[in-house]
Amino acid sequence: MMFNEEMYAYGAKGSAIREINSIGSKLAEEFGKENVYNYSIGNPSLPPPQSVYDAILSILKEPDQVAVHGYSSNWGMKDVRAHLAEGINSKFGQTLTYENIFLTCGSCAALSVLFKGLAVPGDEFIVIAPFFPEYTVFIEGAGAKQVIAMAHEGDFMIDIDNLRNAITEKTKAVIIDSPNNPTGAVYTEENIKALCSLLREKEAELGHPIYLISDEPYRAVVYDDIEVPYPMSYYDDSIICYSFSKSLSLAGERLGYIAFSNKMENWLDIAKAVYGAARINGHAGTPTLFQKVLLTCADDLTDISVYKTNRDILVENLSEMGYSFVYPDGAFYLMVKSPIADATEFAYDAANNYHLLLVPTDDFGYPGYVRLSYCVSTDMIKRSLPAFRKLAEAYGIC
Amino acid sequence: MMFNEEMYAYGAKGSAIREINSIGSKLAEEFGKENVYNYSIGNPSLPPPQSVYDAILSILKEPDQVAVHGYSSNWGMKDVRAHLAEGINSKFGQTLTYENIFLTCGSCAALSVLFKGLAVPGDEFIVIAPFFPEYTVFIEGAGAKQVIAMAHEGDFMIDIDNLRNAITEKTKAVIIDSPNNPTGAVYTEENIKALCSLLREKEAELGHPIYLISDEPYRAVVYDDIEVPYPMSYYDDSIICYSFSKSLSLAGERLGYIAFSNKMENWLDIAKAVYGAARINGHAGTPTLFQKVLLTCADDLTDISVYKTNRDILVENLSEMGYSFVYPDGAFYLMVKSPIADATEFAYDAANNYHLLLVPTDDFGYPGYVRLSYCVSTDMIKRSLPAFRKLAEAYGIC
Repeated sequence: MMFNEEMYAYGAKGSAIREINSIGSKLAEEFGKENVYNYSIGNPSLPPPQSVYDAILSILKEPDQVAVHGYSSNWGMKDVRAHLAEGINSKFGQTLTYENIFLTCGSCAALSVLFKGLAVPGDEFIVIAPFFPEYTVFIEGAGAKQVIAMAHEGDFMIDIDNLRNAITEKTKAVIIDSPNNPTGAVYTEENIKALCSLLREKEAELGHPIYLISDEPYRAVVYDDIEVPYPMSYYDDSIICYSFSKSLSLAGERLGYIAFSNKMENWLDIAKAVYGAARINGHAGTPTLFQKVLLTCADDLTDISVYKTNRDILVENLSEMGYSFVYPDGAFYLMVKSPIADATEFAYDAANNYHLLLVPTDDFGYPGYVRLSYCVSTDMIKRSLPAFRKLAEAYGIC
Repeated sequence: MMFNEEMYAYGAKGSAIREINSIGSKLAEEFGKENVYNYSIGNPSLPPPQSVYDAILSILKEPDQVAVHGYSSNWGMKDVRAHLAEGINSKFGQTLTYENIFLTCGSCAALSVLFKGLAVPGDEFIVIAPFFPEYTVFIEGAGAKQVIAMAHEGDFMIDIDNLRNAITEKTKAVIIDSPNNPTGAVYTEENIKALCSLLREKEAELGHPIYLISDEPYRAVVYDDIEVPYPMSYYDDSIICYSFSKSLSLAGERLGYIAFSNKMENWLDIAKAVYGAARINGHAGTPTLFQKVLLTCADDLTDISVYKTNRDILVENLSEMGYSFVYPDGAFYLMVKSPIADATEFAYDAANNYHLLLVPTDDFGYPGYVRLSYCVSTDMIKRSLPAFRKLAEAYGIC
């Protein structure tokens, strides 16, 4: 064999998002970019906050430029890790130190090395559907098995009964993502408490830890003073994967971290196993200039009022047109029920005939819906509304 | 099992470099940092060239800041990839396009995902000892077996007979690194031609490709107009792993690429397998700001005249003191023969009693030597010379 065919399959497989986008590119060539309404991409549509620019310019003037751009520890710079730990402590009442923080090249790196550091053959990782499709890649890549528990229909909260049925003696971890991609749901404190209560019960019953892995790239992206409970405050065996991709609009700069609860047994050994996985996976540290940006900007937030405006325009108009969806409290996604059973057929029709690029949620483990990413210009949303109306009329939902 | 113990072993194992450095830290506390001569770390000691700063400031003023810091393709930005391909074409007479270039977070990421994309169970990857110790981690991490061929004693060239004996029907690839870490040797054109001739002979005999993987973080770091042959010009099944860590002094910013020869059968499928491995390993693109820096700075070089000065002072003085070594033509390493069989004992003695931090080369698969990294201040080198002399006297080599 000239190369690894399993890896080839991961590399060559198209995703629904890419297929919809390739239709979109052809339409843009024919009808002009302004006449194609692209709701398929979860790429922040806002620039980073001014504080990021101020920080970069200041760092580029520091006297020791060798240290600024030289190798950092694979774990990240000690002062940056300490600063992030202090931020968590002050916001969420924890007692972390730099040792609890492992910096990563964004959320994907965090999840990949975390799963690999934890998993032993036979382990099961439970995801709540709908879920970010790359979870599957990282779970399989770690040699573990993905088990799906469906979210609660109607509000997309964690369905505790579904989750209970999914837990077995092989369960290593449960992965949650709130605010959620693709639903925009934010798990309530009540929901998180019920989750943690179930996990504690199952840990006692099974006699081994079940890690709660909270993937939080959208933590800061919430509207209307919604609170996002911090899992570590409710459950000792919690591990947080954070990314600055959305809060600082730095998705391309690859900047995130893993925070290990210090109430978890053997947490430092677990962190070391994750570091070992990071070595194997070729992660030799996180970009140093942007690590240092975190010393002043970690808690800053790009102006997300545009996302709220976008959400409000979309939910008001789509609701009035007769579309069904669950009102999203966070992230920049809206998950709309397909008027026909086959959401992929619906999405292709919406793209080809109405120039609306929507992503069917089959890849997210939850068929029958389409995902709209509203991290786009407000102007595009307004211009797209007649197309949504025609689409609704064509399917007789208004 | 709470975590993966194999990963823990990779994460918890100390290296000779780290142990020597921990001795150095204690000595620095007791005797002052200026009285400890640290030759253990291969971290560039020069700042990036001015052109990098100019590029960053210009990029930060581009009108579309969302595009600057947003997600790029996992493969890298198309214009950056095309620019790098053109650079290779003009320098080395190739005919690559953007499709032949896969951007990575530095050389470690490149090697890790390349080995994983290529390897199937049972495959053997041959390294030339002495070699960069992380090769072992990436080969084992890809599920393959590392096979060692010793370099030619006396000049550290590839020993063609040793390599011939190491090749079996399971050989997937041979990894070379020139200018070499840790010897500083640059393989001559004659040596590269002999290597490629052997590989072609073995490919014909075994009936399958043997990939030549050239790890080239030090390509630009050569002195006295030494030429570094480009393997792709001599051998069709060549894959180059490049890093800008040393040429642009950006080791911490994680910036490199893989170049796949377009004369290699199925090269695009191989690249796709590598992309699949990158997904699994959690690499979701290379930092975008620094990708864009490459559009103007890819061929720039930090002022390496300091490294040459350092080398010249070291080789002249150590030679005069009676130390044995092979004259290095590139990189910033000098590999000195230990006057006693156990180089680790020698290195510990040099550290504890002479405050010279040298790295024994056992971890590099070539016992009996110590590695000196001379990417340090010239002043430190001059101040360290009396300690080298006392060390030589203590071992009766002068």
